[in-house]
Amino acid sequence: MSVEGLPGYRGKLLEVLKTAKVEIGDIVRVKVDSNIYEGAVMPRVESADDWHIVLKQKSGYNIGIAFTNNFEVLKIGEAIKPEFRAPPLPKSNDNLPKVNIISTGGTIASRVDYITGGVYAAMSSKDLLSIVPELTELAKIDATILYSVFSENINSDHWTGMANDIAKKIDDGANGIVITHGTDTMGYSTAAISFAVQNLPIPVIFVGSQRSSDRPSADSATNLVAAVKAAAYAPFTGVYLCMHEGTSDDSIIFHPGTKVRKCHTSARYAFQTINSDPIARQKNGELEIIADNYPKRSFLKPVIKNKFEKKVALIKFYPGFNPLIITSLIEAGFKGIVFEGTGLGHVSEACYDAIESAKRHGLLLGMTSQCLWGRVNMNVYSMGRELTDRGVIPLEDMLPETAYVKMMWCLGQTSDIILAQQLLLNNFVGEFNTRSLYKRKN
Amino acid sequence: MSVEGLPGYRGKLLEVLKTAKVEIGDIVRVKVDSNIYEGAVMPRVESADDWHIVLKQKSGYNIGIAFTNNFEVLKIGEAIKPEFRAPPLPKSNDNLPKVNIISTGGTIASRVDYITGGVYAAMSSKDLLSIVPELTELAKIDATILYSVFSENINSDHWTGMANDIAKKIDDGANGIVITHGTDTMGYSTAAISFAVQNLPIPVIFVGSQRSSDRPSADSATNLVAAVKAAAYAPFTGVYLCMHEGTSDDSIIFHPGTKVRKCHTSARYAFQTINSDPIARQKNGELEIIADNYPKRSFLKPVIKNKFEKKVALIKFYPGFNPLIITSLIEAGFKGIVFEGTGLGHVSEACYDAIESAKRHGLLLGMTSQCLWGRVNMNVYSMGRELTDRGVIPLEDMLPETAYVKMMWCLGQTSDIILAQQLLLNNFVGEFNTRSLYKRKN
Repeated sequence: MSVEGLPGYRGKLLEVLKTAKVEIGDIVRVKVDSNIYEGAVMPRVESADDWHIVLKQKSGYNIGIAFTNNFEVLKIGEAIKPEFRAPPLPKSNDNLPKVNIISTGGTIASRVDYITGGVYAAMSSKDLLSIVPELTELAKIDATILYSVFSENINSDHWTGMANDIAKKIDDGANGIVITHGTDTMGYSTAAISFAVQNLPIPVIFVGSQRSSDRPSADSATNLVAAVKAAAYAPFTGVYLCMHEGTSDDSIIFHPGTKVRKCHTSARYAFQTINSDPIARQKNGELEIIADNYPKRSFLKPVIKNKFEKKVALIKFYPGFNPLIITSLIEAGFKGIVFEGTGLGHVSEACYDAIESAKRHGLLLGMTSQCLWGRVNMNVYSMGRELTDRGVIPLEDMLPETAYVKMMWCLGQTSDIILAQQLLLNNFVGEFNTRSLYKRKN
Repeated sequence: MSVEGLPGYRGKLLEVLKTAKVEIGDIVRVKVDSNIYEGAVMPRVESADDWHIVLKQKSGYNIGIAFTNNFEVLKIGEAIKPEFRAPPLPKSNDNLPKVNIISTGGTIASRVDYITGGVYAAMSSKDLLSIVPELTELAKIDATILYSVFSENINSDHWTGMANDIAKKIDDGANGIVITHGTDTMGYSTAAISFAVQNLPIPVIFVGSQRSSDRPSADSATNLVAAVKAAAYAPFTGVYLCMHEGTSDDSIIFHPGTKVRKCHTSARYAFQTINSDPIARQKNGELEIIADNYPKRSFLKPVIKNKFEKKVALIKFYPGFNPLIITSLIEAGFKGIVFEGTGLGHVSEACYDAIESAKRHGLLLGMTSQCLWGRVNMNVYSMGRELTDRGVIPLEDMLPETAYVKMMWCLGQTSDIILAQQLLLNNFVGEFNTRSLYKRKN
């Protein structure tokens, strides 16, 4: 980590540090009242308080020292700055498969601020490579930073950028691609790339972590190693999301990019494959294929379809839902709405007028279920038929999130609503199961 | 089922039936070309096609006969109409606990149209009682129809009505109350009643079914028997939702009203308790208590707080979310918004201005997670802190759906936003777990 200046420090404390010509990484002696502390100055996060200096002590532990009127700081040495350097690559490296790690941000690329306990974006894929040197024994690694954003700020422009970068890396001879990503919206991005990069000849593995890499329960290293291994050696192609399967570090699971969802705020096994099966599992370091039929690696040239229509909304229905939300989207010129209805795919009668209006205004309308598991079926109840009569398209067992991303993508490919509807109902990468393949559990 | 006229029949076929003085339940002989069919005329759903007559044949099977130019119909008898009558109550009945079954609609009170395969609302609780006569051996049953609506049309007015009806039944000496409800929004209603009826002295058990009662895999009878049994004999009070636990009929599970969610579109075990445990399970007819501490039956007088503010919205965030949705709610005079953010409780920076505006306009703002499992924690990442700084309240491990209902209820109790916020953060019936009680799974 190479840090310039004094990021995170503000106000009077910043002035005092500047006067003492102290920078991040420098060894300092801090005297407060009768207490003396020594250690390397650590960076702080932007939004941290402005009255603590954080030092990494010789013991390795960090301490925060409150800034008071009796605060003195003296620079006693320029420390070896905590910059991570990639270890020398092994000689055999050129014969290994080539894997590109593309960093987009998230916890897997973050560190903890020791005063607030907060996490901030800090680490590049290169840093990770330094922390996990065994990666270089697995593959010829090329790590680059594409974005450095918390994943709640990811939008379709980033998806377009990722698709383009993937195409470039494949063109440059990548045998597999790993994308590090914040977990919050990783499932949306895996769906987006599944549609935006077609004829994919190699695996694209998204990977994240739920615990930042300096916590004891960190999952970043195990997840990253599994992702790189699969990117380098797995026989399948396609877009997958790789995370812990359960509480154990021994089992890492690979979810299909369009059928995966974050289902826990903090657990390491947060992600689940819904209405389908994972494609593979890495158990004690060995890759086990789960899916019977998987798309094989090929020498196809990828086709990049990187446009997404931004004027698409995902609307979750609930009792008392006010249809003005639909109306306001129509007025704002939206092109499509995916509903997250109840049960088999329902919304209340109170929405019918607004839905008819949306249809008259040429919006593409799709229906998914907030149940998440199971498939919509709008033929069972009369209310479902009322909706299909109004042009709402049942979207099978697609996840609401995947359906939203897919509709953005369909309307990005064509402005013709009939063609967009055809694309929406075309099964590109197994984003829905046809009825006959559906495994009923009861 | 007592049906007047010819519901569901339309057009030419209706005219022909009227001319022949045929009503639902009558035995007719239908001649089409050289084929002759006999049976009782069955009702059809409103939205069914207008060119099939449905007959229940002597065999018990129903057939649909297409109406053509060569269609002749002759009434050959007035059948015993398929009206269900409650069986005579056993003598001992007066000594049994008194259970009120309140019907609000849904599949548990519906029947299939045999041509379309569609389901329509038809049966009252009384009908159910006739189909499941063993109920009268369990309790002194009083069954009434409060509403007959598909549950996607349930809104807060219905919750108010249910709360009032519950109070009345308790006042009349009910030892337990069973509410039959459509499954689509049953979890929202159990949450609403949990807040609207306080000091509940007896159990209120919501029950539904995923398969209509004339299908072989029907779950209505088993669910209803379990619900009535618990209403009559369970030692606990509170609001619960009772459905199949798995694929077997042997195990019926009782979910707490504020921690339950429909998680499958069609499976009989569709409901799951989230971030908590079910209170009890009926296994092979015996009630096993699961929860260590449960609220006991009492002789308290229930306190009815039946007002809900309608101008509250639940907003699911997703990448590319357009803040105009928030703005349009502010303009429409909304009083509160519950966000269903990503991960630990995040939305994008693009929403900050709209959220600040909402706060300036005095809206109550809460944060939940679309992960559903786990708890929000807005202190981990700087983005979370940006939101709490803007007045967004983290709502612990509350389900988004429960948080939405609770905010409607809080703002229904007071128009003072500070008081409403206090109510929102008060744990009334275990709708959230405090941190110390949270069972971490890893």
